[in-house]
Amino acid sequence: MKQFKAEIISIGDEVLAGYTVNTNATFISQKLLSIGLPVQWVTTISDQHNEIMQALESAARRADAVLVTGGLGPTPDDLTKKAICDYFKVGMRQDAETLENVLHFLKARGIKPTDLNQAQALIPACDMVIPNRVGTAPCLVFERNGRHFFFMPGVPGEMKQMVSDHILDYLKEQLSLTPVHTILLRTTGIPESRLYEKLKPILEGFPEIQTAFLPRYIGVDIRFKLISDDPKKITRLKELETRIRSEAKKYIITDQPIELEQVLGDLLHKKELSLSVAESFTGGLISDLLTNIPGSSDYLMAGLVTYSNASKVNLLGVSEKTLEQFGAVSRETALEMVRGVQKRIGTDCAISTTGIAGPGGATDVKPVGLCYVAARFRDKEIVKEFHFGTERLINKKRGAVAGLELLRRLILEQ
Amino acid sequence: MKQFKAEIISIGDEVLAGYTVNTNATFISQKLLSIGLPVQWVTTISDQHNEIMQALESAARRADAVLVTGGLGPTPDDLTKKAICDYFKVGMRQDAETLENVLHFLKARGIKPTDLNQAQALIPACDMVIPNRVGTAPCLVFERNGRHFFFMPGVPGEMKQMVSDHILDYLKEQLSLTPVHTILLRTTGIPESRLYEKLKPILEGFPEIQTAFLPRYIGVDIRFKLISDDPKKITRLKELETRIRSEAKKYIITDQPIELEQVLGDLLHKKELSLSVAESFTGGLISDLLTNIPGSSDYLMAGLVTYSNASKVNLLGVSEKTLEQFGAVSRETALEMVRGVQKRIGTDCAISTTGIAGPGGATDVKPVGLCYVAARFRDKEIVKEFHFGTERLINKKRGAVAGLELLRRLILEQ
Repeated sequence: MKQFKAEIISIGDEVLAGYTVNTNATFISQKLLSIGLPVQWVTTISDQHNEIMQALESAARRADAVLVTGGLGPTPDDLTKKAICDYFKVGMRQDAETLENVLHFLKARGIKPTDLNQAQALIPACDMVIPNRVGTAPCLVFERNGRHFFFMPGVPGEMKQMVSDHILDYLKEQLSLTPVHTILLRTTGIPESRLYEKLKPILEGFPEIQTAFLPRYIGVDIRFKLISDDPKKITRLKELETRIRSEAKKYIITDQPIELEQVLGDLLHKKELSLSVAESFTGGLISDLLTNIPGSSDYLMAGLVTYSNASKVNLLGVSEKTLEQFGAVSRETALEMVRGVQKRIGTDCAISTTGIAGPGGATDVKPVGLCYVAARFRDKEIVKEFHFGTERLINKKRGAVAGLELLRRLILEQ
Repeated sequence: MKQFKAEIISIGDEVLAGYTVNTNATFISQKLLSIGLPVQWVTTISDQHNEIMQALESAARRADAVLVTGGLGPTPDDLTKKAICDYFKVGMRQDAETLENVLHFLKARGIKPTDLNQAQALIPACDMVIPNRVGTAPCLVFERNGRHFFFMPGVPGEMKQMVSDHILDYLKEQLSLTPVHTILLRTTGIPESRLYEKLKPILEGFPEIQTAFLPRYIGVDIRFKLISDDPKKITRLKELETRIRSEAKKYIITDQPIELEQVLGDLLHKKELSLSVAESFTGGLISDLLTNIPGSSDYLMAGLVTYSNASKVNLLGVSEKTLEQFGAVSRETALEMVRGVQKRIGTDCAISTTGIAGPGGATDVKPVGLCYVAARFRDKEIVKEFHFGTERLINKKRGAVAGLELLRRLILEQ
């Protein structure tokens, strides 16, 4: 079985200057890997004839598929277009479909076409054109000696649509790639090492399946991969998934590439439950994350960021005695906060956080990173103590995820 | 004046697989550009002998400085180390300073050294070693025919410290680079095109100074750059800065690479003012941004995310009549929210937002993206109507920045 290889060339001075991070290459790498075509080289160059020629020559020696992004501007004297013509020894031609697409695009926006727009349809005489559904510059496709070249605009939205809707299928067919089966199990609330120890006995029984543990600040992703069209092996992959799901049930939040706030939001929506939040440690991050999800106004009634002691007392009804006796950063305060906000706003569920996010604020007995998180679902409640690190922003993230996850488990009674 | 060029080689399978975005290259590009050494090529390859050799050969033909990140693991049979030895035709040697650094690093963490740690001090016989102050693997430096090669670990924190504390100065000296003078003026509240029109007459008088307008979702950065050691030209740069500052005074929030929440936080801290926030449209993002700044508990007393109408009435005292007559998304509601939160929490300043973040929620008369933002400073108040776009997350960002900026200007009476 031949291992095909791909290569990415990014043309763009903004990337070289460090103004833009090359997320285009990240996207393409992920997508190509998902069809069993690993990227071996990524090259970023400036929009200069000599550089483009040199990069294409090197790539053509190494890769079966070469994906180029950027450099395709609207002007006819475009350097990339010229380099493409020279490299493939072709001339320019007027492309009817591209012209139609440009005119259609302008018309939809009420813009009158100019000579420059006509010039946009003047493209190197490639073997195939993939139209641009969200912009004007099309994708140019060449094939030479069984190697496939794709020239796309650098605008992420346009490039992504071309890759997802056309190029992946095209390459699967042209290179007769073996199907890749991937499974994602997204976990939270358990460190990578403990999760690995827990699952190791199962994993050892499936050596033919590639397994990766990918830690994130807010949890660990488990990824399984199988490159095969053998039905027996595919059945084995499903068997592995079933066993892992059963063993790590408590920690698996989703098998989709979505975040916990979406998982919890979907659960609240499905069960028609309302939520309120009282945040000190996380400073509004939980509300912010929840309201990133469209439709969150259906279940999130209110969030109170009670940073001062006075606001904890006045808005949430935390007792001054509790604050005096145990301090604002305490199990007791976290509990009074979550009870207070649930009662005050009148919701089915509630979350609260209190702690020392850092870098300042530590005392002799309470270090930076100490955090109490509580959740309530009707009259069931839970409070947990956490010891995070010293980095404020990461602490906030971890505290927010802890709050969302405590509530999720409480609702599901896990 | 010779234009020196740099090149970056990133070694790392995680980047090629699309699991990690190559932000190391972004950082290095920015830093090198700041000393007048533009990066011309960025290449990402996997940790394989042949790939590394090939990438080094190509880079050495093109660049005066080659910065390599990643691939330097702790094991002695490391592929990158082997390739380095082969490329430079040198052997391995035990480095006393590196060994001392590794032992010191372990001791500080209470870890007992193993044979593997001894092996970490076995490095290719390079011309110079830059010690690692935050980890174990050092930076290896080679010079061949006036070209400089740096091999660094891929851990961002370690790489950054090496570049900032050593490599920049080293390259400035070795290549006798002409000094680069850069000025950043960060603006908000004015679109790029209007800002450009406003400043064009001034800019035209300084053709020798490179100017760039860099739009962000939340404002426009103006960057000036001058590569020169001529005192007359440097005086001209200062003159340009003074004139632009005066013309765009209202919009310039800082000349540092910091965000608006930090600028406003510093202002509140300096003037000893307290703040409360009432958010609907921005869903907690303003509180979240403010509490990202260490010490924000000094001025942020509370933030109320009043997503439901009931919470607007009960927590902020917005009148039911206002909600009925004008709707939750209205100038009137925004004003009652900002007045309510200021009074309720008892703060010097307050911000409020209400609107339709999308994608749902639009009515016949109120489209997605409509947003009202209000600010109060003591008894002065302002409310503004905005028409943002259709993307929820970008809308939240723009609404948050609008709120922070309205208050900043109100305090400064601009």
